[in-house]
Amino acid sequence: MTLKVALLGAGTVGVEVARRILERPDELRDRIGDDLELTSVVVRDTSKERPGVPADLITADAHVAIQGADIVVELMGGIDPAHDLILSALNSGASVVTANKALLAKHFAELFEAADNAQVRLEHEAAVAGAIPIIRPVGDSLAGDRITRVMGIMNGTTNYILDKMDTEGWSFDEALKTAQELGYAEADPTADVEGHDAAAKVAILASLAFHTPVTIDDVYVEGITSVTAEMVETARAQGFTIKLLGICEKLDDLGKVSARVYPALLPNSHPLSSVSGAFNAVFVEAEAAGELMFYGQGAGGAPTASAVLGDIVSVARRKVLGGRGQYERRARTILPVASLGDITTRYQTTLDVADRPGVLQAVTEVFANQEVSIELVQQSQYDDLEDGDSRAKLVIATHSATESALAQTVKNLNDLDVVRTIHSVLRIEGQ
Amino acid sequence: MTLKVALLGAGTVGVEVARRILERPDELRDRIGDDLELTSVVVRDTSKERPGVPADLITADAHVAIQGADIVVELMGGIDPAHDLILSALNSGASVVTANKALLAKHFAELFEAADNAQVRLEHEAAVAGAIPIIRPVGDSLAGDRITRVMGIMNGTTNYILDKMDTEGWSFDEALKTAQELGYAEADPTADVEGHDAAAKVAILASLAFHTPVTIDDVYVEGITSVTAEMVETARAQGFTIKLLGICEKLDDLGKVSARVYPALLPNSHPLSSVSGAFNAVFVEAEAAGELMFYGQGAGGAPTASAVLGDIVSVARRKVLGGRGQYERRARTILPVASLGDITTRYQTTLDVADRPGVLQAVTEVFANQEVSIELVQQSQYDDLEDGDSRAKLVIATHSATESALAQTVKNLNDLDVVRTIHSVLRIEGQ
Repeated sequence: MTLKVALLGAGTVGVEVARRILERPDELRDRIGDDLELTSVVVRDTSKERPGVPADLITADAHVAIQGADIVVELMGGIDPAHDLILSALNSGASVVTANKALLAKHFAELFEAADNAQVRLEHEAAVAGAIPIIRPVGDSLAGDRITRVMGIMNGTTNYILDKMDTEGWSFDEALKTAQELGYAEADPTADVEGHDAAAKVAILASLAFHTPVTIDDVYVEGITSVTAEMVETARAQGFTIKLLGICEKLDDLGKVSARVYPALLPNSHPLSSVSGAFNAVFVEAEAAGELMFYGQGAGGAPTASAVLGDIVSVARRKVLGGRGQYERRARTILPVASLGDITTRYQTTLDVADRPGVLQAVTEVFANQEVSIELVQQSQYDDLEDGDSRAKLVIATHSATESALAQTVKNLNDLDVVRTIHSVLRIEGQ
Repeated sequence: MTLKVALLGAGTVGVEVARRILERPDELRDRIGDDLELTSVVVRDTSKERPGVPADLITADAHVAIQGADIVVELMGGIDPAHDLILSALNSGASVVTANKALLAKHFAELFEAADNAQVRLEHEAAVAGAIPIIRPVGDSLAGDRITRVMGIMNGTTNYILDKMDTEGWSFDEALKTAQELGYAEADPTADVEGHDAAAKVAILASLAFHTPVTIDDVYVEGITSVTAEMVETARAQGFTIKLLGICEKLDDLGKVSARVYPALLPNSHPLSSVSGAFNAVFVEAEAAGELMFYGQGAGGAPTASAVLGDIVSVARRKVLGGRGQYERRARTILPVASLGDITTRYQTTLDVADRPGVLQAVTEVFANQEVSIELVQQSQYDDLEDGDSRAKLVIATHSATESALAQTVKNLNDLDVVRTIHSVLRIEGQ
């Protein structure tokens, strides 16, 4: 028996996947127990050359390509037409491998229900954190444990930008420009720098880790466009690194899950703080397993192709062995997604205040009124301000508090006449 | 349908596994799609109390317990009777989950052949690096890639000892004693400190990563008993940390694999160098995926139970879905295991020499004669030696060389009359 593979999409990852299937049939047969045959590569522009992919495999007709395929590999990205094509492949009895995070973050439940009804498999290791095996560990290895929290650096572009702001002292704009020149950032960097890419990954991980439907619309998102060189510098001086974190956690006392993406302060001693450049890392906390970390390349043609090929081999092995598809990932419990106000974390606020007696008392009273407990206050004078004003800079770190208490605190600080400017309000994670 | 689970062994891990199966039947049914029923817990001493395990499940008769079980979980450890019991379980049609690294490192090929013939599954995530999901990533997630190298800290006891020698300046004996007091080391610490425990894990990982049979007898092993406080201090002064590393790699030009365990110098910038205390971490290099790292707790009741439960859920899901067991892990290629002399790495030698003109030339000539290229020589004088001798200390780091060339170099250095003492010869990895 030969397993027929149809590939939808031939960008960087698609070409790499095709090349590796074509170049080493013997090795793949050894891994699978049967032959893989790449039957078609579906592209929009059939005239464009795809190095290493024979011209007779190239076609623009996805529907014909799907007919008769045992495994459909979707690497087109985007919602349409990927959504319809995957459903059509599943319904025709093909198993599907996809790297499409945007699609999964929107239609996770529907797609897995379709796979389950058709008794075929749907795999998506490449959709989160590139080559890092994270889907299988979270979905399978830890299936007998209870995952309590997942926190990670899931976007290489923003990590590169924040890394350069930290190590080179660059501004956000400088770092973004260099990232674009190096091909780490798109011409339109919105999806990365506004946190949407990371949010899609958080939605997928939350759905898997907590067995409850979480879509990208449920994820609270703040990007890194408001992170300034000064904020990075202040953080560094205090032993912190600013990272864009994707977090999902189970709020057991509320019976809810939280899913969120925002830039936060991480202590330099935390393993995630030293993840540099375009690398990704995901920290998983489980009841019995304790803390686990997974680290590797989060993007790029070859790393992503590695994850896609792992899924292809896994699906193909199952085809060879028989059985009714994979265990459904259908949600068994429906846990409401917490609003941001529900979550509890620590905060650091940097603000300028009038430099006169009684100011510190007035400021700390605002925190106390919201029952936000202060852990540390650091006050420093400005030397020779050009405007002749007399101001002090306060850095205030709190103990754990709810977002809603903090939001009210910040609002009240803004209303306080001795407060000149609130430079930043950053969450502190990993401590 | 209810899936019957027989548990062989009720030590720390066994009791934890039993407790978790008994305490949350609903959650496990949600993960699996069917009920799990713990039918018996086999122990040697039936009179001993096992907290959380009902007395009517306890039995001393393993053969009766295996009869009728769908899943047999082997947590007894050791070769006999575990070997016979697992074979008997597989042949009776049960799938098996084991944490038994000693057994797998000796009988990997035979056990997987038996599982394959019986068309059932054999899982062993807990046998390597405790809770860290490493078997599934190496065996499945990277099955479509080509793994080139696996290097890791796979023994928590020795890592704790080396860590304390490094951070606290303790001697090996002091660190071992504390480890024993804290329960990190056994009363007889041989298996840990001589590297045998790590060697078993390396054999299993090599078999999986390179699809070729590697047993513990194929693994070259050096333990950490000869590592002195002075060696650790010298290493630290030069930006290195000494770690007990388990390494397996494919030597493509020789068509061989290498599997070895020894203490080596790691540059402080390497991610493995900061893995402290009883933690484990495994670094995997693959052709397409690049570098990956997996980090977590390598031992302990709860973390190991997490890995065992993940395997139980995985095997149970497959039972529910049907199909002919897992893809066989039978070796497809037989790659010879390289002798130590074949492998290539960098070395650092610390030695005392006579402090007189021409000595450095004589010493470096010994290296040159074996075509071992020197990267760095650091010479330092001793102040006021009590014996009135005039000696210098040399630290010599080489470029990559073969073990056999180095062994001959060290032998020739020993024969050189200007060489007083060779303090240490350590390999340098991760650079």
